[in-house]
Amino acid sequence: VGTPGRISLLFDVFVLNQHLRVLLTETLAGTGMRPDEYAVYSLLFEEGPLPPTDMAAAMGMPLTTVLDYLRAMREKRHVRRTRNPRDGRSYLVSLTKTGLVAFHRASAAWNRAVRHLEGALTVPSAEVRHALQALDDAASTAIGLLDAERAEVAR
Amino acid sequence: VGTPGRISLLFDVFVLNQHLRVLLTETLAGTGMRPDEYAVYSLLFEEGPLPPTDMAAAMGMPLTTVLDYLRAMREKRHVRRTRNPRDGRSYLVSLTKTGLVAFHRASAAWNRAVRHLEGALTVPSAEVRHALQALDDAASTAIGLLDAERAEVAR
Repeated sequence: VGTPGRISLLFDVFVLNQHLRVLLTETLAGTGMRPDEYAVYSLLFEEGPLPPTDMAAAMGMPLTTVLDYLRAMREKRHVRRTRNPRDGRSYLVSLTKTGLVAFHRASAAWNRAVRHLEGALTVPSAEVRHALQALDDAASTAIGLLDAERAEVAR
Repeated sequence: VGTPGRISLLFDVFVLNQHLRVLLTETLAGTGMRPDEYAVYSLLFEEGPLPPTDMAAAMGMPLTTVLDYLRAMREKRHVRRTRNPRDGRSYLVSLTKTGLVAFHRASAAWNRAVRHLEGALTVPSAEVRHALQALDDAASTAIGLLDAERAEVAR
């Protein structure tokens, strides 16, 4: 079988994701939230109120995807909109009291998983985050290079 | 807006994933393969022939998910089965000539993106892989702890 999972950096990321998905989906089972939904709630909890465009930038998601999440959250009355004092054409999103209750129910389970995960790390958490950040920066640069190549070909 | 993306290690992973998905989906556009499919083809290319159970283990996926990928690949005649000499009840999967052609078409684009990505890394690639591996090991340990807790509650 050789050394599966040692193929490349990106294969490592792929496998890591699969494992984290198993951990987090099991962790959140019964809380009514998926891991990707939890990320949206936690962003609003930690950094809200935010305009949808800032949410999209912070999560690395297209705006349309953020709006899909927000529509589902509004239907559950988990988010509300307020006027954006810095931009009259935009609005700010924040969690409602019901949204906070849903978030806190999920975050009790989530934090237990995070404690297990960080407790099991044999490398300092700051070092791991530094590496993830470097990879994320490189991905942004690579996206820029790809776009530039395409523009070159299209000229 | 504070410092979006600095919420937690897992939020970092989430955002990294979003960015890598953009990069790799753009990279593979027009090759007829999605990034997750590319991962399956590359495993078979690098490590095949493999039984489906080994593929599942290497990718951190449930066996059923691997079988879904393989069904789609068989319909395109991209994979074939051969007898597993080590286990008569199992079989080995490998890429056919047509599957190899599809893989090589995608891998030309993929490798260009990987070169951009690795070229833009400000941290040695081995360091990043070490951090990813540590996080992956911790995820496996955390899954074990979660399962043990559940078994305890169920007793």
